[in-house]
Amino acid sequence: MAQTKIDAKLIGNMAFQMDLDGHRLVTDASEEIGGNDLGPRPKKLLLAGLIGCTGIDVTSILKKMKVEVEEMGLEVKAESSEEHPKVYTKLHLTYSFKGNNLPMDKLERAVSLSQERYCGVSAMLKKTAPITYDIIVEE
Amino acid sequence: MAQTKIDAKLIGNMAFQMDLDGHRLVTDASEEIGGNDLGPRPKKLLLAGLIGCTGIDVTSILKKMKVEVEEMGLEVKAESSEEHPKVYTKLHLTYSFKGNNLPMDKLERAVSLSQERYCGVSAMLKKTAPITYDIIVEE
Repeated sequence: MAQTKIDAKLIGNMAFQMDLDGHRLVTDASEEIGGNDLGPRPKKLLLAGLIGCTGIDVTSILKKMKVEVEEMGLEVKAESSEEHPKVYTKLHLTYSFKGNNLPMDKLERAVSLSQERYCGVSAMLKKTAPITYDIIVEE
Repeated sequence: MAQTKIDAKLIGNMAFQMDLDGHRLVTDASEEIGGNDLGPRPKKLLLAGLIGCTGIDVTSILKKMKVEVEEMGLEVKAESSEEHPKVYTKLHLTYSFKGNNLPMDKLERAVSLSQERYCGVSAMLKKTAPITYDIIVEE
Protein backbone atom coordinates (compact mmCIF):
# COMPACT_ATOMS: atom_id res chain seq x y z
CA MET A 1 0.00 0.00 0.00
CA ALA A 2 1.51 3.29 -1.11
CA GLN A 3 1.12 6.36 1.06
CA THR A 4 1.31 10.03 0.15
CA LYS A 5 1.36 12.94 2.57
CA ILE A 6 1.04 16.64 1.87
CA ASP A 7 1.36 19.43 4.41
CA ALA A 8 0.00 22.89 3.78
CA LYS A 9 -0.15 26.09 5.76
CA LEU A 10 -2.35 29.13 5.58
CA ILE A 11 -0.35 32.04 4.14
CA GLY A 12 -3.09 34.60 3.50
CA ASN A 13 -6.80 35.05 4.07
CA MET A 14 -7.61 31.81 2.29
CA ALA A 15 -4.37 30.85 0.54
CA PHE A 16 -2.61 27.59 1.33
CA GLN A 17 0.99 26.87 0.44
CA MET A 18 2.36 23.38 0.08
CA ASP A 19 5.25 21.48 -1.40
CA LEU A 20 4.55 18.84 -4.05
CA ASP A 21 7.57 16.80 -5.08
CA GLY A 22 9.80 19.77 -4.29
CA HIS A 23 7.60 22.21 -6.23
CA ARG A 24 5.86 24.99 -4.33
CA LEU A 25 2.16 25.29 -4.97
CA VAL A 26 -0.26 27.87 -3.63
CA THR A 27 -4.05 27.63 -3.88
CA ASP A 28 -6.27 30.61 -3.25
CA ALA A 29 -9.75 32.03 -3.69
CA SER A 30 -10.55 35.00 -5.89
CA GLU A 31 -10.71 38.46 -4.36
CA GLU A 32 -14.48 38.46 -4.89
CA ILE A 33 -14.98 35.86 -2.24
CA GLY A 34 -12.31 37.09 0.15
CA GLY A 35 -9.10 35.55 -1.17
CA ASN A 36 -6.05 37.26 -2.68
CA ASP A 37 -5.62 35.27 -5.91
CA LEU A 38 -2.14 34.12 -4.82
CA GLY A 39 -2.68 30.90 -6.74
CA PRO A 40 -5.27 29.03 -8.78
CA ARG A 41 -8.72 28.03 -7.52
CA PRO A 42 -8.31 24.57 -5.99
CA LYS A 43 -11.04 22.76 -7.88
CA LYS A 44 -9.28 23.43 -11.19
CA LEU A 45 -6.33 21.40 -9.92
CA LEU A 46 -8.46 18.32 -10.53
CA LEU A 47 -8.56 19.25 -14.20
CA ALA A 48 -4.84 20.00 -14.21
CA GLY A 49 -4.28 16.60 -12.62
CA LEU A 50 -6.39 14.93 -15.29
CA ILE A 51 -4.42 16.62 -18.09
CA GLY A 52 -1.07 15.81 -16.52
CA CYS A 53 -1.96 12.20 -15.79
CA THR A 54 -3.31 11.24 -19.18
CA GLY A 55 -0.58 13.34 -20.81
CA ILE A 56 2.15 11.28 -19.14
CA ASP A 57 0.45 8.03 -20.17
CA VAL A 58 -0.01 9.03 -23.79
CA THR A 59 3.51 10.44 -24.30
CA SER A 60 4.94 7.36 -22.61
CA ILE A 61 2.88 4.89 -24.67
CA LEU A 62 3.62 6.70 -27.95
CA LYS A 63 7.33 6.57 -27.16
CA LYS A 64 7.11 2.80 -26.68
CA MET A 65 5.24 2.60 -30.01
CA LYS A 66 8.05 4.65 -31.66
CA VAL A 67 5.55 7.30 -32.70
CA GLU A 68 7.22 10.70 -32.91
CA VAL A 69 4.99 13.65 -32.16
CA GLU A 70 6.22 17.19 -32.88
CA GLU A 71 3.62 18.96 -30.77
CA MET A 72 0.91 17.84 -28.45
CA GLY A 73 -1.88 19.79 -26.82
CA LEU A 74 -4.48 18.78 -24.27
CA GLU A 75 -7.65 20.66 -23.54
CA VAL A 76 -10.24 19.85 -20.93
CA LYS A 77 -13.74 21.29 -20.76
CA ALA A 78 -15.72 20.78 -17.59
CA GLU A 79 -19.34 21.39 -16.74
CA SER A 80 -20.22 22.04 -13.11
CA SER A 81 -23.34 21.85 -11.02
CA GLU A 82 -24.75 25.14 -9.76
CA GLU A 83 -25.61 24.07 -6.23
CA HIS A 84 -23.39 23.28 -3.27
CA PRO A 85 -21.33 21.25 -3.23
CA LYS A 86 -20.35 22.41 -6.72
CA VAL A 87 -18.98 19.43 -8.56
CA TYR A 88 -17.97 18.63 -12.11
CA THR A 89 -20.76 16.86 -13.93
CA LYS A 90 -19.18 16.30 -17.37
CA LEU A 91 -15.60 16.27 -18.60
CA HIS A 92 -14.38 16.35 -22.17
CA LEU A 93 -10.76 16.01 -23.23
CA THR A 94 -9.35 17.00 -26.60
CA TYR A 95 -5.98 15.49 -27.52
CA SER A 96 -4.29 17.30 -30.40
CA PHE A 97 -1.19 16.05 -32.13
CA LYS A 98 1.06 17.53 -34.78
CA GLY A 99 3.66 15.56 -36.72
CA ASN A 100 4.50 13.84 -39.99
CA ASN A 101 2.26 10.99 -41.06
CA LEU A 102 1.03 10.31 -37.57
CA PRO A 103 -0.68 6.89 -37.41
CA MET A 104 -4.23 7.57 -36.20
CA ASP A 105 -4.72 4.00 -35.01
CA LYS A 106 -1.74 4.23 -32.66
CA LEU A 107 -2.81 7.63 -31.33
CA GLU A 108 -6.26 6.21 -30.62
CA ARG A 109 -4.79 3.16 -28.98
CA ALA A 110 -2.52 5.26 -26.74
CA VAL A 111 -5.38 7.52 -25.63
CA SER A 112 -7.70 4.61 -25.07
CA LEU A 113 -5.11 2.72 -22.98
CA SER A 114 -4.70 5.79 -20.81
CA GLN A 115 -8.44 6.36 -20.36
CA GLU A 116 -9.43 2.74 -19.90
CA ARG A 117 -6.49 1.31 -18.05
CA TYR A 118 -3.66 3.48 -16.78
CA CYS A 119 -4.76 6.96 -15.77
CA GLY A 120 -5.59 6.92 -12.08
CA VAL A 121 -6.97 10.46 -12.17
CA SER A 122 -9.41 9.53 -14.94
CA ALA A 123 -10.44 6.43 -13.02
CA MET A 124 -11.19 8.59 -9.97
CA LEU A 125 -12.95 11.47 -11.74
CA LYS A 126 -15.08 9.08 -13.79
CA LYS A 127 -16.85 8.13 -10.59
CA THR A 128 -18.19 11.64 -10.38
CA ALA A 129 -18.49 12.75 -14.02
CA PRO A 130 -18.42 10.94 -17.35
CA ILE A 131 -15.25 11.61 -19.36
CA THR A 132 -15.42 11.77 -23.14
CA TYR A 133 -12.64 12.64 -25.56
CA ASP A 134 -11.71 13.36 -29.11
CA ILE A 135 -8.45 13.35 -31.01
CA ILE A 136 -7.30 15.96 -33.52
CA VAL A 137 -4.35 15.46 -35.84
CA GLU A 138 -2.57 18.20 -37.76
CA GLU A 139 0.10 17.50 -40.35
CA MET B 1 -24.50 25.48 -16.03
CA ALA B 2 -20.98 26.70 -15.40
CA GLN B 3 -18.19 25.79 -17.80
CA THR B 4 -14.45 25.68 -17.26
CA LYS B 5 -11.81 25.19 -19.93
CA ILE B 6 -8.11 24.56 -19.56
CA ASP B 7 -5.55 24.33 -22.36
CA ALA B 8 -2.22 22.67 -21.93
CA LYS B 9 0.75 22.02 -24.16
CA LEU B 10 3.55 19.52 -24.05
CA ILE B 11 6.79 21.33 -23.10
CA GLY B 12 9.10 18.39 -22.40
CA ASN B 13 9.14 14.63 -22.66
CA MET B 14 6.03 14.33 -20.51
CA ALA B 15 5.57 17.80 -19.00
CA PHE B 16 2.44 19.82 -19.68
CA GLN B 17 2.19 23.54 -19.09
CA MET B 18 -1.11 25.31 -18.54
CA ASP B 19 -2.58 28.50 -17.20
CA LEU B 20 -4.99 28.33 -14.25
CA ASP B 21 -6.60 31.65 -13.36
CA GLY B 22 -3.51 33.46 -14.63
CA HIS B 23 -1.12 31.19 -12.71
CA ARG B 24 1.27 29.00 -14.68
CA LEU B 25 1.27 25.36 -13.70
CA VAL B 26 3.45 22.56 -15.01
CA THR B 27 2.88 18.87 -14.35
CA ASP B 28 5.56 16.29 -15.04
CA ALA B 29 6.65 12.73 -14.38
CA SER B 30 9.75 11.83 -12.38
CA GLU B 31 13.01 11.15 -14.21
CA GLU B 32 12.70 7.47 -13.31
CA ILE B 33 9.79 7.01 -15.64
CA GLY B 34 11.04 9.31 -18.39
CA GLY B 35 9.95 12.77 -17.26
CA ASN B 36 12.08 15.75 -16.24
CA ASP B 37 10.49 16.69 -12.90
CA LEU B 38 9.58 20.15 -14.22
CA GLY B 39 6.55 20.15 -11.96
CA PRO B 40 4.64 17.98 -9.50
CA ARG B 41 3.20 14.54 -10.30
CA PRO B 42 -0.34 15.19 -11.54
CA LYS B 43 -2.22 12.85 -9.21
CA LYS B 44 -1.04 14.83 -6.18
CA LEU B 45 -2.89 17.84 -7.56
CA LEU B 46 -6.10 16.13 -6.45
CA LEU B 47 -4.82 16.26 -2.89
CA ALA B 48 -3.71 19.86 -3.33
CA GLY B 49 -7.18 20.65 -4.65
CA LEU B 50 -8.75 18.97 -1.63
CA ILE B 51 -6.60 21.00 0.77
CA GLY B 52 -7.23 24.26 -1.04
CA CYS B 53 -10.98 23.69 -1.34
CA THR B 54 -11.72 22.77 2.24
CA GLY B 55 -9.21 25.40 3.38
CA ILE B 56 -11.16 28.16 1.64
CA ASP B 57 -14.43 26.92 3.13
CA VAL B 58 -13.11 26.71 6.67
CA THR B 59 -11.33 30.09 6.68
CA SER B 60 -14.40 31.67 5.15
CA ILE B 61 -16.85 30.10 7.63
CA LEU B 62 -14.64 30.93 10.63
CA LYS B 63 -14.48 34.53 9.46
CA LYS B 64 -18.28 34.68 9.37
CA MET B 65 -18.32 33.15 12.88
CA LYS B 66 -15.85 35.87 14.03
CA VAL B 67 -13.37 33.22 15.08
CA GLU B 68 -9.81 34.52 14.79
CA VAL B 69 -7.19 31.94 14.00
CA GLU B 70 -3.49 32.84 14.26
CA GLU B 71 -2.21 29.89 12.29
CA MET B 72 -3.82 27.11 10.36
CA GLY B 73 -2.34 23.98 8.86
CA LEU B 74 -3.84 21.28 6.70
CA GLU B 75 -2.36 17.86 6.13
CA VAL B 76 -3.68 15.15 3.88
CA LYS B 77 -2.61 11.51 3.95
CA ALA B 78 -3.64 9.32 1.06
CA GLU B 79 -3.45 5.58 0.53
CA SER B 80 -3.29 4.32 -3.03
CA SER B 81 -3.99 1.05 -4.76
CA GLU B 82 -1.00 -0.81 -6.18
CA GLU B 83 -2.51 -1.87 -9.49
CA HIS B 84 -3.37 0.14 -12.58
CA PRO B 85 -5.19 2.41 -12.63
CA LYS B 86 -3.58 3.56 -9.38
CA VAL B 87 -6.22 5.41 -7.43
CA TYR B 88 -6.54 6.81 -3.94
CA THR B 89 -8.39 4.40 -1.68
CA LYS B 90 -8.43 6.35 1.61
CA LEU B 91 -7.98 10.01 2.46
CA HIS B 92 -7.41 11.54 5.87
CA LEU B 93 -7.30 15.26 6.58
CA THR B 94 -5.83 16.87 9.68
CA TYR B 95 -6.90 20.44 10.36
CA SER B 96 -4.66 22.19 12.88
CA PHE B 97 -5.42 25.57 14.39
CA LYS B 98 -3.46 27.89 16.64
CA GLY B 99 -4.95 30.85 18.49
CA ASN B 100 -6.24 32.16 21.80
CA ASN B 101 -9.19 30.35 23.36
CA LEU B 102 -10.32 28.87 20.09
CA PRO B 103 -13.89 27.52 20.41
CA MET B 104 -13.68 23.83 19.51
CA ASP B 105 -17.39 23.61 18.73
CA LYS B 106 -17.11 26.31 16.07
CA LEU B 107 -14.00 24.77 14.55
CA GLU B 108 -15.80 21.44 14.34
CA ARG B 109 -18.85 23.07 12.84
CA ALA B 110 -16.77 24.89 10.19
CA VAL B 111 -14.93 21.72 9.19
CA SER B 112 -18.10 19.67 9.15
CA LEU B 113 -19.94 22.24 6.99
CA SER B 114 -17.08 22.12 4.49
CA GLN B 115 -16.91 18.32 4.39
CA GLU B 116 -20.63 17.67 4.37
CA ARG B 117 -21.97 20.57 2.37
CA TYR B 118 -19.67 23.03 0.63
CA CYS B 119 -16.45 21.49 -0.59
CA GLY B 120 -16.94 20.31 -4.16
CA VAL B 121 -13.56 18.59 -4.25
CA SER B 122 -14.43 16.52 -1.16
CA ALA B 123 -17.79 15.65 -2.68
CA MET B 124 -16.04 14.40 -5.82
CA LEU B 125 -13.17 12.52 -4.16
CA LYS B 126 -15.54 10.87 -1.67
CA LYS B 127 -16.98 8.91 -4.58
CA THR B 128 -13.66 7.18 -4.99
CA ALA B 129 -12.22 7.11 -1.45
CA PRO B 130 -13.65 7.67 2.02
CA ILE B 131 -12.48 10.92 3.61
CA THR B 132 -11.95 11.09 7.36
CA TYR B 133 -10.57 13.98 9.38
CA ASP B 134 -9.40 15.15 12.75
CA ILE B 135 -8.91 18.56 14.29
CA ILE B 136 -5.96 19.65 16.41
CA VAL B 137 -5.93 22.85 18.46
CA GLU B 138 -2.85 24.51 19.92
CA GLU B 139 -3.00 27.44 22.26
